Amino acid sequence: MSGPRTPEPALDGQGASPAGSQDEDMADGIQRSHRMLSFSDALLSIIATVMILPVTHTEISPEQEFDKSVQKLLATRIAVYLMTFLIVTVAWAAHTRLFQVVGKIDDTLALLNLACMMTITFLPFTFSLMVAFPEAPLGILLFCVCVMAVGAVQALIVVYAFHFPHLLSPQIEHSAHRALYRQHILGIILRGPALCLAAAGFSLFFYPVSYLLMATVIFLPYVSKAAGWCRARLAGPREPPAHSLEIFTFDLHEPLSKERVEAFSDGVYAIVATLLILDICEDNVPDSKDVKEKFHGSLVAALGASGPHFLAYFGSFATVGLLWFAHHSLFLHIRKATQPMGLLNTLSLAFVGGLPLAYQQTSAFARRPHDELESVRVSCAIIFFASIFQFAIWTTALLQEGETLQPSARFGGQEHAFMFAKLVLYPCASLLAFACTCVLSRFSTAIFHIMQIAVPFAFLLLRLLVRLALAGLRGLRGLRGLARPARARPVPGALDDARSPLLPAPC
Amino acid sequence: MSGPRTPEPALDGQGASPAGSQDEDMADGIQRSHRMLSFSDALLSIIATVMILPVTHTEISPEQEFDKSVQKLLATRIAVYLMTFLIVTVAWAAHTRLFQVVGKIDDTLALLNLACMMTITFLPFTFSLMVAFPEAPLGILLFCVCVMAVGAVQALIVVYAFHFPHLLSPQIEHSAHRALYRQHILGIILRGPALCLAAAGFSLFFYPVSYLLMATVIFLPYVSKAAGWCRARLAGPREPPAHSLEIFTFDLHEPLSKERVEAFSDGVYAIVATLLILDICEDNVPDSKDVKEKFHGSLVAALGASGPHFLAYFGSFATVGLLWFAHHSLFLHIRKATQPMGLLNTLSLAFVGGLPLAYQQTSAFARRPHDELESVRVSCAIIFFASIFQFAIWTTALLQEGETLQPSARFGGQEHAFMFAKLVLYPCASLLAFACTCVLSRFSTAIFHIMQIAVPFAFLLLRLLVRLALAGLRGLRGLRGLARPARARPVPGALDDARSPLLPAPC
Repeated sequence: MSGPRTPEPALDGQGASPAGSQDEDMADGIQRSHRMLSFSDALLSIIATVMILPVTHTEISPEQEFDKSVQKLLATRIAVYLMTFLIVTVAWAAHTRLFQVVGKIDDTLALLNLACMMTITFLPFTFSLMVAFPEAPLGILLFCVCVMAVGAVQALIVVYAFHFPHLLSPQIEHSAHRALYRQHILGIILRGPALCLAAAGFSLFFYPVSYLLMATVIFLPYVSKAAGWCRARLAGPREPPAHSLEIFTFDLHEPLSKERVEAFSDGVYAIVATLLILDICEDNVPDSKDVKEKFHGSLVAALGASGPHFLAYFGSFATVGLLWFAHHSLFLHIRKATQPMGLLNTLSLAFVGGLPLAYQQTSAFARRPHDELESVRVSCAIIFFASIFQFAIWTTALLQEGETLQPSARFGGQEHAFMFAKLVLYPCASLLAFACTCVLSRFSTAIFHIMQIAVPFAFLLLRLLVRLALAGLRGLRGLRGLARPARARPVPGALDDARSPLLPAPC
Repeated sequence: MSGPRTPEPALDGQGASPAGSQDEDMADGIQRSHRMLSFSDALLSIIATVMILPVTHTEISPEQEFDKSVQKLLATRIAVYLMTFLIVTVAWAAHTRLFQVVGKIDDTLALLNLACMMTITFLPFTFSLMVAFPEAPLGILLFCVCVMAVGAVQALIVVYAFHFPHLLSPQIEHSAHRALYRQHILGIILRGPALCLAAAGFSLFFYPVSYLLMATVIFLPYVSKAAGWCRARLAGPREPPAHSLEIFTFDLHEPLSKERVEAFSDGVYAIVATLLILDICEDNVPDSKDVKEKFHGSLVAALGASGPHFLAYFGSFATVGLLWFAHHSLFLHIRKATQPMGLLNTLSLAFVGGLPLAYQQTSAFARRPHDELESVRVSCAIIFFASIFQFAIWTTALLQEGETLQPSARFGGQEHAFMFAKLVLYPCASLLAFACTCVLSRFSTAIFHIMQIAVPFAFLLLRLLVRLALAGLRGLRGLRGLARPARARPVPGALDDARSPLLPAPC
């Protein structure tokens, strides 16, 4: 069900039997697609995230107040970032589904995929143009042309793959309804471009309709996903109609391949963690003239002046790294990623992408102390949302735990309490830091840095802490049990049912 | 031999037997390491590549000549980029070998790995500092502290993994000489930090010795690899001494894991391809005031003014994409990556990382026409070197083809001619473009753009072209055979032996 991406078998003999069929394939120029897919994942995750850089590079001079014009510039850039992130994740999801249908590739498909990627990388520019000139039809036209080009390339991929059915995933290759599949898939692929064609038409005489249509293209998948999920929870899973039962691999309501969700998320975390070092290297190497004049030739003093930047960098890297760690631990226990989980993951990643902004903010307050409080609060909020959406993935998974989670992570499983603690650490820490800044507003920076430094150690000690807490809980219950042995003997099935398997194993 | 990274088995049943042992492991907090390794690969490849940005952001105003100060700045930044690239690839190779020994991870190891990554990301800054202040001991000290910290964390990882032997790769876990292994591995890991400690000491009173020691740390692995390979080619493979026969997984002369070479390369290609869109989005969205004043409100005219930038972007993306495509095709036919292949791959990637520079150069000549010729030539040279090193990987692999290549790609295999043509396309095209600029220097830009546009189509037509060429060759030989049937009947074993399997299969 989760797509045809079986890993390549290890080749040990020169002409051994496992290598035989693969080599036969390769002789016809047919290749397994896993490396192309990871490359596409890397490209798309970088494009989605990199548009945060114009936001963080918005320069506010020390004298200048945080006035209207700066606010407007910042707001438009954040809008470009969010729109890019959303449209790229939509494109990524479509790409994932497409290559769940197309199981193998050849050179032509690999080149078509590159063309598709090139068109997608151009989307951020069209957004920048739209935001800078909202009333000119050119930005809208360019966006629509891009989406149509992507649609055309994807349609070409589908037509090509159905023309050479050995490229398709085995389920479809051996199906009797292949022509039906092709039509169905082409219909889904060309829906977005068709809407964009209409948007391009409207842009020439009444542009607000174009924006409406474009918003439909971007948000429809999310809205339809969310609506479908709510309906399923309210009314129970609906009966699929008889003949569409087979069209599962391209249905928007099917789970995404877990490997690709992981690969995309890894890309986002990796690029966010490393964007920061760029700023450090570009901005914080002191000028040799400055060192001589301002710091009397003392390099240490010059570096000390930008000390808060380094602290903020390490804190920020630690935060991104640990959020990745929580994500990693979570997905270790997940068997498949359903649609609402994918949506929550996207939202979490969008906030993770905002973390360089948090870095910029916290490192900027060295210069403008009166904005310090604001900056720390914005940072706490970004961290809180990034982590709370991770927690939401977990709770959503628990709703259908039989299907989505490994046994050890389910209610009552051995790892359940640890998982819970790992995911709840950052929301709690950021909330606590936020609350502290409200009470002790003068020490907000110190509070924030203490949080950033303390959390990694908390992660290291987590297993110990959870064990201690549970042992304490058991001890407490044991004491209560001793105090009133006859009145309230713990019922094995009620409270204990949820708690006792969480108790630590004898060390 | 190629390390313990077996892919995770697919989980299909809720408590099915393949899931059993994995879930058991997970209950103890032990995890397979593949996702952490891909994340590390992504991080390291981005850090290695991202330092090209300060080079490309070197601003040269239109009035300013390409004078001494700019040249010096550019040279130092290129030096920082190359040094960062080399040290990060050394660190990456060490990381790969380390996790060929440590087969599984738990939370502690994952967090230690994050700490290791954080320290490595700080290395580019120490380089920037060293280049800006070559005579101050601070840069050297910081670099040495970083390397020592990385070494300490890696030593901790080794000690921890040997303390819980179930984390080790099975070969070492079940070996009788485990203590010996530990000592040997720790010795290799702590060699670099020890040299750096000496360098830090010397930096305080005689800094040139420090640079010598640091260069040893950076280049020693490469020099020793190259020397070892030359010795092996000249004197044949040497007999390994009796008891070190088992210490193969950490020997510097062992092949790297092919998956990790691919993942690292993918990261570099992906980040290089997407760095370009950043520049486009930041620099080429026209200012609304400019549009009104300079272009009489015509957005199209304003965008047309930066038209060459867009052309250069698409050309550059196509080049990176197709170089990735060639790399992908090449590694599909490779079974394992030996040490000289890894070295050549690193060199190729270092030039690929320079491609944004080529983009910047070619898009800058719109402003400064007198530098046009220079820029086009630099771009051609970068593309040539990036592709010729790929070709060198292929020739090196052919030297030991039984060990390193799939049967279909060897001499006489069905894919051999296609592979050769794919890898030779870019070196030839860039050389041709370079030669053309020497003859027709006035049209150098046009020549370069024609090359960038023509090569993708050449790739698409390659299979057809190779078939046609071979059919032509066969036809020619057939004609000659007809002309002199008795005198020179083709000997089946001599020339034909190398050629005939390359002939096209009947279409």
